[in-house]
Amino acid sequence: MNNETMIHDTFWNRYRKLVKHEMIPYQWDVLNDAIDINIEKERDDDFIPNEKSHAIENFRIAAKRSQGDHYGWVFQDSDVYKWLEAVSYSLMYEWDEDLKKTADDVVDLISEAQEEDGYLNTYFTIKAPERKYKRLGESHELYCAGHFIEASVAYYEATGNEKVLSVARKLADHICSVFGEGEGKICGVDGHEEIEIGLMKLYHLTGNDTYLKEAEFFLRQRGKDPEFFDRQKAADAKDPIIAGVYTFPKKYFQMHVPVEQQDTAEGHAVRLVYMSTALADLAATTNDKGLADVCRKIWRNIADKRMYITGGIGSTVIGEAFTLDYDLPNDTMYCETCASIGLIFFAIQMLRIESRSEYADIMERALYNTALAGMALDGRHFFYVNPLEVVPEKSANDPGKSHVKPVRPEWLGCACCPPNLARMIASVDKYIYTAKEDEILVNLFIRSESDFELNGHTVRIKQECDYPRSGKITFLVSNNGTNPVNLKIRIPGWADDYAGKVDEKTADIVSDNGYWNVAIPGGDHRIGYDIQITPKRWYCNPKVSENIGKVAIARGPQVYCAEGADNGIGLHNLNLPADSELSYEWRDDILGGVGVIDAKGWRTDANDFGEGLYYTGNRPREEECSIRLIPYYAWANRGEGEMRVWLNEAK
Amino acid sequence: MNNETMIHDTFWNRYRKLVKHEMIPYQWDVLNDAIDINIEKERDDDFIPNEKSHAIENFRIAAKRSQGDHYGWVFQDSDVYKWLEAVSYSLMYEWDEDLKKTADDVVDLISEAQEEDGYLNTYFTIKAPERKYKRLGESHELYCAGHFIEASVAYYEATGNEKVLSVARKLADHICSVFGEGEGKICGVDGHEEIEIGLMKLYHLTGNDTYLKEAEFFLRQRGKDPEFFDRQKAADAKDPIIAGVYTFPKKYFQMHVPVEQQDTAEGHAVRLVYMSTALADLAATTNDKGLADVCRKIWRNIADKRMYITGGIGSTVIGEAFTLDYDLPNDTMYCETCASIGLIFFAIQMLRIESRSEYADIMERALYNTALAGMALDGRHFFYVNPLEVVPEKSANDPGKSHVKPVRPEWLGCACCPPNLARMIASVDKYIYTAKEDEILVNLFIRSESDFELNGHTVRIKQECDYPRSGKITFLVSNNGTNPVNLKIRIPGWADDYAGKVDEKTADIVSDNGYWNVAIPGGDHRIGYDIQITPKRWYCNPKVSENIGKVAIARGPQVYCAEGADNGIGLHNLNLPADSELSYEWRDDILGGVGVIDAKGWRTDANDFGEGLYYTGNRPREEECSIRLIPYYAWANRGEGEMRVWLNEAK
Repeated sequence: MNNETMIHDTFWNRYRKLVKHEMIPYQWDVLNDAIDINIEKERDDDFIPNEKSHAIENFRIAAKRSQGDHYGWVFQDSDVYKWLEAVSYSLMYEWDEDLKKTADDVVDLISEAQEEDGYLNTYFTIKAPERKYKRLGESHELYCAGHFIEASVAYYEATGNEKVLSVARKLADHICSVFGEGEGKICGVDGHEEIEIGLMKLYHLTGNDTYLKEAEFFLRQRGKDPEFFDRQKAADAKDPIIAGVYTFPKKYFQMHVPVEQQDTAEGHAVRLVYMSTALADLAATTNDKGLADVCRKIWRNIADKRMYITGGIGSTVIGEAFTLDYDLPNDTMYCETCASIGLIFFAIQMLRIESRSEYADIMERALYNTALAGMALDGRHFFYVNPLEVVPEKSANDPGKSHVKPVRPEWLGCACCPPNLARMIASVDKYIYTAKEDEILVNLFIRSESDFELNGHTVRIKQECDYPRSGKITFLVSNNGTNPVNLKIRIPGWADDYAGKVDEKTADIVSDNGYWNVAIPGGDHRIGYDIQITPKRWYCNPKVSENIGKVAIARGPQVYCAEGADNGIGLHNLNLPADSELSYEWRDDILGGVGVIDAKGWRTDANDFGEGLYYTGNRPREEECSIRLIPYYAWANRGEGEMRVWLNEAK
Repeated sequence: MNNETMIHDTFWNRYRKLVKHEMIPYQWDVLNDAIDINIEKERDDDFIPNEKSHAIENFRIAAKRSQGDHYGWVFQDSDVYKWLEAVSYSLMYEWDEDLKKTADDVVDLISEAQEEDGYLNTYFTIKAPERKYKRLGESHELYCAGHFIEASVAYYEATGNEKVLSVARKLADHICSVFGEGEGKICGVDGHEEIEIGLMKLYHLTGNDTYLKEAEFFLRQRGKDPEFFDRQKAADAKDPIIAGVYTFPKKYFQMHVPVEQQDTAEGHAVRLVYMSTALADLAATTNDKGLADVCRKIWRNIADKRMYITGGIGSTVIGEAFTLDYDLPNDTMYCETCASIGLIFFAIQMLRIESRSEYADIMERALYNTALAGMALDGRHFFYVNPLEVVPEKSANDPGKSHVKPVRPEWLGCACCPPNLARMIASVDKYIYTAKEDEILVNLFIRSESDFELNGHTVRIKQECDYPRSGKITFLVSNNGTNPVNLKIRIPGWADDYAGKVDEKTADIVSDNGYWNVAIPGGDHRIGYDIQITPKRWYCNPKVSENIGKVAIARGPQVYCAEGADNGIGLHNLNLPADSELSYEWRDDILGGVGVIDAKGWRTDANDFGEGLYYTGNRPREEECSIRLIPYYAWANRGEGEMRVWLNEAK
């Protein structure tokens, strides 16, 4: 069930070129402190190191090529690993000998920084060797290891570099020897899930069962021993590694109950989705129905009760965390870029467990909105937090909104998001299809060519489209076998008008768990699919207090927003009536090419009030106005201004 | 211009009896750790000491009557001082020999805790004598001193106790000798304003100019040397006294610019209003037009741009602070009880500067809403934070709302509010009138008898009313002089229908800066005043994003709210149309006697949505419902539930 895909898509190739030609070289300069940029704190917090990256230099010091002290977060290494992973994927679609040489050198450097026994983490090697694995609630040692292993698998697959794989195996073997239930082993987990994902990938690459078992150990151990971090801390009894982490509740680490009993999405949002990704991978791989059920429950809780319309998750900056059902404030939320990327990871694993298109619906929602919003159109500015409502003056003057940036910084003190997004975009080809033994799921509509190996025969799919600008999609499928292959084409949850043709014959599309299931016999076939993509009004469940009386506009997978650049200040005063026509127009000249939506609306006249705050008598006057909306992912590319997704809807 | 007032009011005497018979004995038990109560942290913060009060025991240890360590905040002493001040006022309206004996003993204890040179602060005496005055940004030493001086003045006036005054003078003289511009003196201020209020009161009592000058020094020094606290901290270089204070910006302490240049309300709200109170007192006392202008600007900024409709101030929990103009979130604000009490202090001083009724309007707004809401109807439970919107599940599960309690705790880790409210209610007689040389301002409508000494002759005013239940007020005025006295009766800003009679003759009421100015000749006169008090709809300035499309209901000075006990859950789904009749009814059987407001409205049917969060199609259905509103001050006296002041208003 291998799958090789080449993307030829207008929308995505722009992004993928940006990764290759802007993000990767830019991030390389940042990691080497070779570029003069302003590194912002992702929120107002004295403990955030933001003078420089120092990430490569940390490796040079650990490798004894250089002298000095470690600088940055305890997880600074992971920035390098995610960069290396993005490089790997980029090499798969655009080979670059110089870049490969640079990356090979990085592999050499990492290999020199690895200790004899396989241990790899520059912070502890340089700064606190005696505290290794003694403070796992904060230390991110296994988190960093997981990212290195993920990068290694990708780099090996892209280049065949054996050294990177041997470093990864040595590291993984070391971890397997230290952590587990056996005597003398540490029976505990990392505060931040990620090693589980890395070990599963290493298992998928090598087939070595030890890695699968170790991933399962870490997953099943989570929450089994809620006091583990506290005990470690008491035994270590030194300065914290990350101040404040222990003030968070056990939910923050998903340590409140054993993982098998977790049925809601709790705690730090990125941690939760990383845990769920590995859990779903394990459940799919081992066909574990119990774990699959846990994944379903967590998914349902996110999708039905704790997710923004933009695919953002994490309702509060405090602990970057989930809060409670239906609590979705639009202006103080976190909606970290990494969390939506993690939600995409989780979704693709859920599709392995079961063929239900809603997983792909949410994958698409997170991808086309929050994930892409994480980067400016120039590929050199990044959001950590992705709000649904911004007023720049409030971000500047209300300390409870210090994390809600109105424009993307050049870099962040905690730089997890930019390289995470680079690796996501560079590997988006892996999310288009899910190939199973007897069926191929179409998750995303991206112009591409793919080859599948299924049950011994080859299937080639050429997908022609200009999505999401247009909903006209053609699949040219060549099945070189004799048995039919089920092509399950997603019927997007937002679509209510679509038509299909199979080999020029009009098809009757019946939803099969959200799919149009087309049996493709041997030979060449042409499937036409035409989804009407028009601007639509979306309402929110009335249990969400923040969105009562409000409407959000989306067109296909893209959520739209009103921006100051088009609509001036005081966006809360806009009123988009339910009967106002939403007119859509593609504009090449705006924001690198976007479809804009224009409508007539009303604006409360903020000057019809006089001085003072409270007034008894008539409501303030409204005046007619034009409202322009742009796709959410493209906001904040025209300077600082207000932005708002949910607009008031007059009756 | 003395003024002696006895209150006979139904509304207020209930509260004043509560102070005397519930709050004072209860708080005494708390200060002595003699009662088993649950002391809650006012917000989720590990540094808040909440095991016990220990406030009296701290004095016993400092006085060497007992042994042990100091416990509690560095400003724990002030809880005792404010209790003593409340006792003083209560003795003025209900003499109690036993209570006086207890208070005399407290004075003796405090006197024993005072050091030889006049220094008084149990934290530093017990715990860190070498750090006295070395960390003024955090130490609250002068803050506590100010509260002691205020209490002393009150207790001396109530009982003639000479010892309390001598301790206060010794303390004030000590402070005057240590702080100032002279050589060898500390040219700096306390992080929390309050000493200035105390010194002004001591000046008013004693006529000793030194205290006035010292208050002026502290006030004019504020913001002149913004680095003062940082320099002290660097020189002290030890553990912080209150962790985290230095992460706040200089505005937090009103240290960002010299006080004369401050024209907006910035920083910690209580500090700002305490500073402004002393500043206005100084400006009124010395007739300083420059300082009066500063006060006017700060006032305007609060009243026009930074105050909740309930008279609450402080839009954020972070630093318990003001944020920016028109930033008034209803569910994450602070609106500390103490801040509204401080706003009342500020207002009464502004009335000395100039006779403008709007100062009394806001005083009344703060008093009848946020200040009174600070206490349960039983006098034994207290709010620190006074929200305009509460959902208990959000307070419990959203860490950004951990400070927004849905019911009043029995006591608070930082217990500034309960005794502050006790002294406010016990001294409310002092806020009814402002007597000047040639006029008497009627600020509040409270049934009472007052004697005024004006320019050598006596004026007696008997105020008859049952306010705010009724707007019918009668003033029986006896002017024993021959010159007429101007009685300036406030025309409330919310009133638009009122009539007056002077000695049975219908008067033509013309507003004179918000007053009905009645010249009272010698002899006995009867002034009838009839203000129509009906439920009214209030709208918010459209610059405030949170209240667009919403309405608040008030009746006279009382803001109303919808509570879960009457309206169930999901108050955000209520819709109170603009044309719905608001019917008012007095109910003796509800909440100790309140006027309730009932109206027909609509409720979005939260079950008309099914599973999931987002939906394209029709808006969720509304169904007709009854909406009941109660006065804001009385909320949260019927168990835990939702509460909301601003309701959606359908067109």
